[in-house]
Amino acid sequence: MEKTILAYDTVALDDEGSALVIIDQTKLPNEFSLLRLTAQADIWDAIYRLKVRGAPAIGVAAGYGAYLAARAIDTDDYETFSREFGKALAYLNSSRPTAVNLSWALARMARAAEEEKSRGVAAVKARLLAEARAIQQEDIDTCRKIGEYGLSLLSPGDGLITHCNAGQLATSRYGTATAPMYLGQERGYHFRVFCDETRPLLQGARLTACELMSAGLDVTLICDGMAASVMRKGWVAAVFTGCDRVAANGDAANKIGTLPLAIAARHFGVPFYICAPTSTIDMATATGAEIVIEERPAEEVTEMWYAKRMAPPDVKVFNPAFDVTDAGLITAIITERGILRPPFTASLAAVMGTAGK
Amino acid sequence: MEKTILAYDTVALDDEGSALVIIDQTKLPNEFSLLRLTAQADIWDAIYRLKVRGAPAIGVAAGYGAYLAARAIDTDDYETFSREFGKALAYLNSSRPTAVNLSWALARMARAAEEEKSRGVAAVKARLLAEARAIQQEDIDTCRKIGEYGLSLLSPGDGLITHCNAGQLATSRYGTATAPMYLGQERGYHFRVFCDETRPLLQGARLTACELMSAGLDVTLICDGMAASVMRKGWVAAVFTGCDRVAANGDAANKIGTLPLAIAARHFGVPFYICAPTSTIDMATATGAEIVIEERPAEEVTEMWYAKRMAPPDVKVFNPAFDVTDAGLITAIITERGILRPPFTASLAAVMGTAGK
Repeated sequence: MEKTILAYDTVALDDEGSALVIIDQTKLPNEFSLLRLTAQADIWDAIYRLKVRGAPAIGVAAGYGAYLAARAIDTDDYETFSREFGKALAYLNSSRPTAVNLSWALARMARAAEEEKSRGVAAVKARLLAEARAIQQEDIDTCRKIGEYGLSLLSPGDGLITHCNAGQLATSRYGTATAPMYLGQERGYHFRVFCDETRPLLQGARLTACELMSAGLDVTLICDGMAASVMRKGWVAAVFTGCDRVAANGDAANKIGTLPLAIAARHFGVPFYICAPTSTIDMATATGAEIVIEERPAEEVTEMWYAKRMAPPDVKVFNPAFDVTDAGLITAIITERGILRPPFTASLAAVMGTAGK
Repeated sequence: MEKTILAYDTVALDDEGSALVIIDQTKLPNEFSLLRLTAQADIWDAIYRLKVRGAPAIGVAAGYGAYLAARAIDTDDYETFSREFGKALAYLNSSRPTAVNLSWALARMARAAEEEKSRGVAAVKARLLAEARAIQQEDIDTCRKIGEYGLSLLSPGDGLITHCNAGQLATSRYGTATAPMYLGQERGYHFRVFCDETRPLLQGARLTACELMSAGLDVTLICDGMAASVMRKGWVAAVFTGCDRVAANGDAANKIGTLPLAIAARHFGVPFYICAPTSTIDMATATGAEIVIEERPAEEVTEMWYAKRMAPPDVKVFNPAFDVTDAGLITAIITERGILRPPFTASLAAVMGTAGK
């Protein structure tokens, strides 16, 4: 099964331009299943149920979803088209209201339609297809650049640790944290990658281990609490993770368990790199203290995946989905525009064009 | 179910002195089941299959198991008795060859028989019963003293983190790391305890949360990677864990995941306490680097507990059962003979009576 994953895009438009094709990530690693989605309700459901997940991949799915909605609107009158298209965008946007890339991609599609409206509905539809393809291509380009910059920090034979899934399955191709691994694999670097399983949702075990193995990388799965032992053994040269939001001072929110990994890396003198498309850098958030951490249901910890309940009935559970890694624990932030070094307040402002503002 | 656990000893001899009664820990937390064991094969199996677990509890079970073996030897001739008894001890000792307390308890029972042999087989059997009871009573006394010393470090309302199960289910009563919690509960301290679930075997979720809730403590279950977030929130005053072996310099081996917890505690300025009966202090081991870390099967990480496999087929797994926390990360080692402070080389030598040797 695992040999097939990288042969397919996580998200794609089919050759006829008539359906969204995604890998059903809820079935991994036990089943590789491609879903061909045309109805808006099915696309909405795929995003809502995390069949497609990862902020960049959701953005791409939303772009194609919006195009498919436009394609199905049977009118030559732009006002009629625009009213129907607006409804479709609002519907898709309701699938995961907290995912930034979802609303960002849909707003971009709405702007594209408006820009083209003087040329008629057929031209608008053509422009929307081009825009959706552009969103995907930019995601691929961004990940590849992050991969090149990340790889420049590594040597052949290095051991690496990653956490959660900031891989191809979270993007269109390459991933963010995994991009240096894939490029290194193409160039004979022979990395040894340790994947944190990433409790409670096991993205590391189910997704990252799966996709890296499909590319032929040397993968070793560990429980989250074993990363420090791997570092002590001297097996790793660096830690690479993705991130969900970077504050203006460099504090970075990412999947729960990233913070203790960064603290352990500091303890053992292992460089800790955050891979962040500039779309995840939020200059309006001053520090990580302002980032609201989503708390999720107790059942993810006590019941999900298990054959039977694995904790006492009615036990209280604290289940934060993310944590914030202090800027001071981060060796560098790797973006598609270059490798940012401390002090991050200055390097982030420079790359985001807000220096002096 | 959970209200019943503390009403029973983890390990006990029944009132007639004719059977070993244990809580079947493999059934927790979904089922509370007491096993009444008389046949040697059943006692062996209970230890082998971790129905009774935790080094102190295994030692107590071995003591009673040895007594029950002696009780069943039907002869008045000591030489005949001794030959049969020796076979029984060797059989029990083969159940878990790496558990120190098992061989320690059985050797103690063998010595007791030898000391009493001039008084005849009936007297030997009586002495063996007394010896087994003494092993259990000493375990209870040790845990209670650790609890008193530990409690002296705490204030009412404190938040605490613990890892794995160093609780009543691992001992005869009180536990080691949990002893301050139980004594505090009796005295109205109203602790709030965060239990690391402790991957891969989930002893924190299945056992520790269970037994603490049964005593009415305020328990919150977390995944191992969430402890750092709990510390950052300022919710905890201290971390308490048990340990499996303390080296002469204070390095302490304990369940995998203890090391990153100690590193995070240091990062956030939270005191990190190891609770260690002096029986776990090994002055013959100079440092933690000499402690051999057992590696266990991959299936504990990829399959065990789950409704279906949770990782790619054939993925490599690194599954160390323990890690070593550096002495420098430990605030104090709490023993039944007092609270040991750094430098541990000196304080351990003093309490173990090896200073100057």
